[in-house]
Amino acid sequence: MTFKNILFISYVYTHLHFYCFLLHLKPPPTKMVGTHLSIFKPNLSRPPTTPTPSHRSTIISAVHVAQNLSYFDTIHSDIDSHLKNSITIRQPTAVFEPMHHFTFSAPKTAAAALCVAACELVGGSRQDAIVAASAIHLVHAAAYTHDHLRLTHRVWSEPGPEIPHRYGSNVELLIGDGIMPFGFELLARSMDPAGENSGKLLRVIVEITRAVGAEGMVAGQGYENGQPARRLHGCGAACGAILGGGNEEEIGRLKRYGVYVGKIQGLLSQLGESGGDKLQLLEKWRGLALKELECFESRQIERISTIVGV
Amino acid sequence: MTFKNILFISYVYTHLHFYCFLLHLKPPPTKMVGTHLSIFKPNLSRPPTTPTPSHRSTIISAVHVAQNLSYFDTIHSDIDSHLKNSITIRQPTAVFEPMHHFTFSAPKTAAAALCVAACELVGGSRQDAIVAASAIHLVHAAAYTHDHLRLTHRVWSEPGPEIPHRYGSNVELLIGDGIMPFGFELLARSMDPAGENSGKLLRVIVEITRAVGAEGMVAGQGYENGQPARRLHGCGAACGAILGGGNEEEIGRLKRYGVYVGKIQGLLSQLGESGGDKLQLLEKWRGLALKELECFESRQIERISTIVGV
Repeated sequence: MTFKNILFISYVYTHLHFYCFLLHLKPPPTKMVGTHLSIFKPNLSRPPTTPTPSHRSTIISAVHVAQNLSYFDTIHSDIDSHLKNSITIRQPTAVFEPMHHFTFSAPKTAAAALCVAACELVGGSRQDAIVAASAIHLVHAAAYTHDHLRLTHRVWSEPGPEIPHRYGSNVELLIGDGIMPFGFELLARSMDPAGENSGKLLRVIVEITRAVGAEGMVAGQGYENGQPARRLHGCGAACGAILGGGNEEEIGRLKRYGVYVGKIQGLLSQLGESGGDKLQLLEKWRGLALKELECFESRQIERISTIVGV
Repeated sequence: MTFKNILFISYVYTHLHFYCFLLHLKPPPTKMVGTHLSIFKPNLSRPPTTPTPSHRSTIISAVHVAQNLSYFDTIHSDIDSHLKNSITIRQPTAVFEPMHHFTFSAPKTAAAALCVAACELVGGSRQDAIVAASAIHLVHAAAYTHDHLRLTHRVWSEPGPEIPHRYGSNVELLIGDGIMPFGFELLARSMDPAGENSGKLLRVIVEITRAVGAEGMVAGQGYENGQPARRLHGCGAACGAILGGGNEEEIGRLKRYGVYVGKIQGLLSQLGESGGDKLQLLEKWRGLALKELECFESRQIERISTIVGV
């Protein structure tokens, strides 16, 4: 472990303890670090500036060495592997290098991880949901890239916080435009030879397009801060439940569970801005989220519910 | 017919005769106007500035009065109707009004019309292909909107020719981002209740995502002028052949036919820039395009081949 990694882990821990203090909770034991990274602060597991791929893989290796990956860490790791196999840097590199960069420099989203967790909760396998989870990360990465685009005329919204720009705006625009349909391509291509999963795949495509299309992300970005995240989290959980063979009640409940997770994560990301009322709201949403899981057996809900801090 | 319409039709005819002269062809008779508008000059049927919806509907009405719609005009008219039913201006109007505007102010693309024509050629009905054709228009409209976005840093490409901007850049960005997935949503939602067309729909989604995704439109925009148009035209024809129940040879031949149509239309749009060599190339591509249709019965190919000026 290099000095740089030690510094980074110290950074994560300092912040983690700070948020635990805010929430009047005990700091998590070492073996839970991955889980709580997801719970308490979205993207806290990433350094403040966009890490290079080699930096990120060093971090992942360091966690692997500890042999104590949390449930959601293992999911993120599997999604990452699937995406790395799907998006290789090849000719023309002027297209695939930035595509690779934007895909992996976008912060990880719990929406993608929820897709796998929901699938496993209803009895499906990780493999059933990994493509959809990757597609959800891709549409999220495309939106993240466009959210930081430098435009000459902004009317509705302020640009996102400044991030380092490795490429020109038109590369960000075009590659973002290419990443989104690539997500749908991955999904559509994952039809099994007999076409038995084709109905489920089309339903998943409808879920994702609604979450990121005009009625979802656009309306959200135009109107209410945090709305897109909530839609994508609900969508992720619903897609997983569909692919895992859940019944309509299970799909509906997991979708609502995902919406609460998105709300909670959105609120946690703003916790520094003000105080008390938000913690009450957080507890209320956490309770409502867990209520949606009651129809599942208690043994099964343990893993998926770690994301709301239980 | 208003004075404005008479002026517009005079404008179209002046240009039409000019292109006929260039191609050493007789000017078309009045009743063929619609067909030849499609053949000789992409988007010639549109005034130089973006028409308002009411202006466009006046034009359509004027053509309807003549009761002499060409084959491709009837297809464009049906796609337009389907899109108008799918995209209504509703709440929140700040989202759906610009979505409506960008969808209908983008120039019509022969790629969408080829989808219907190819479907009918292989024995399918217009209804089988109208949703896919609408989806192709939507991804084209999203790309057209983003192609004219005002960015602060351009590296790869020059912006498209200046067009009137009714909205701020971030509205163009976000609504463009919303229009593209809406195309896939329309397609995925068109699964029949028994799911019998689901395999075809997923294959069509793969065709479209490849044409507009990283390997298609992005690579094209980055590297070679005209490439995206060719990919989308080939994709349109292939999608129609798939949905109409064509066999693999028919799908392959119609895809290549569409690619040639895209190349021909790309070349025609640049005809004013220089002279002779391009006309030879045009004749060559036209011959190769028609060769792809030889496996179909001669009676059936008459309608689809009007688009390459036969």
